[in-house]
Amino acid sequence: MKIDVLRNVFQKNDRAAEQNRAQFDRLGIACVNILGGAGSGKTATLESIVPLLASHLRIGVLEGDLATTRDAERIAALGVPVVQLLTDGGCHLNATLVQHGLETLMQHALDLVIIENVGNPICPANFDLGEHLRISILSVTEGDDKPQKYPHLFKDVRGVLITKCDLLPHVDFDVARAEADIRRLTPEAAIFETSSRSGIGIGNAAAWLRSAIEKSRRVVART
Amino acid sequence: MKIDVLRNVFQKNDRAAEQNRAQFDRLGIACVNILGGAGSGKTATLESIVPLLASHLRIGVLEGDLATTRDAERIAALGVPVVQLLTDGGCHLNATLVQHGLETLMQHALDLVIIENVGNPICPANFDLGEHLRISILSVTEGDDKPQKYPHLFKDVRGVLITKCDLLPHVDFDVARAEADIRRLTPEAAIFETSSRSGIGIGNAAAWLRSAIEKSRRVVART
Repeated sequence: MKIDVLRNVFQKNDRAAEQNRAQFDRLGIACVNILGGAGSGKTATLESIVPLLASHLRIGVLEGDLATTRDAERIAALGVPVVQLLTDGGCHLNATLVQHGLETLMQHALDLVIIENVGNPICPANFDLGEHLRISILSVTEGDDKPQKYPHLFKDVRGVLITKCDLLPHVDFDVARAEADIRRLTPEAAIFETSSRSGIGIGNAAAWLRSAIEKSRRVVART
Repeated sequence: MKIDVLRNVFQKNDRAAEQNRAQFDRLGIACVNILGGAGSGKTATLESIVPLLASHLRIGVLEGDLATTRDAERIAALGVPVVQLLTDGGCHLNATLVQHGLETLMQHALDLVIIENVGNPICPANFDLGEHLRISILSVTEGDDKPQKYPHLFKDVRGVLITKCDLLPHVDFDVARAEADIRRLTPEAAIFETSSRSGIGIGNAAAWLRSAIEKSRRVVART
């Protein structure tokens, strides 16, 4: 009985995810789902990258959190439309909650929807939200053993941003080892060493993301 | 139906947790459950604190992880008995898995069982494992907004270790603000600023933990 219910939960989520993706495709909108642990630097990365993309793309953001509207306020300060999705203690976003958020967000004409998932390196990876590409965030302060310890977070992602690289001199983090372990999970992943504090790598990551998004939208336009 | 199943999951967990606690109490063993996000420094903290406690207490450790036996190997290097609990992708430990681990761990005569939960700031907080006290770990690299954003992690814990304080000069983390937010959730929590790298605060945290454990064991002995 438990397994049946879990299957129903996933089936319901996958149906809603397909509806979200169909809506994005109909409107020529690309959608990115950003995953990572609590405090890995997801919001700070968006604060750095969104301004670089905003001159080319009309961006809307869905912010997933358990509690508080703090992250949505940080994104709103960038001047892009944002909707806070509160899970009320829940450990991941699901496609139905995203659907509700989109009802509000889609009142704006958009080219790109960025979903910042709940800070959790485990559960969000199991839930398709209807995104076209998935990006994972790993901060150097979390440790270079994380790709091996949390393989789901790095499996089948389009890109990985290794964040807080300004702290590399102060922590034991072997970038080459982390990258090798990520590539073992997803050989074709684009990997960037970044710091939203110093700005290292942000321009490269933004340029890659813009190109990946444009490709997604062209694929959508062709289908 | 979904709610019923969830209720069954929690009831089953709570029954197993009570069995674990009864076993600890019968044998005069204290049990500590350590929670925190991925890479917050749970294992590093144990590597610092266990040697300070091991001359007074016979310690056994249960290591919770999704994959790999890396953390268990780090603990085994301290010369204390350890059992790795692999959740196989699951996002938290449950009391039944702990029960299985205890079958092996309890072949040793112990005063203290330390359970290091899966690195996840959300789900583990919902599952009683049969512990007597709960400790949460928050690293300064995660950000001082985490007590507000992840309130369950700091609610009703006996102590909080703020870790990686050697990195305070390099990050924006307001210790006073984090402590105030933790105290709003759990006014009586003991809070320690620590660094397993520099050793700051480790002695104080270990002395407090030893005292809290001894109190738990005396309470057990009286009942």
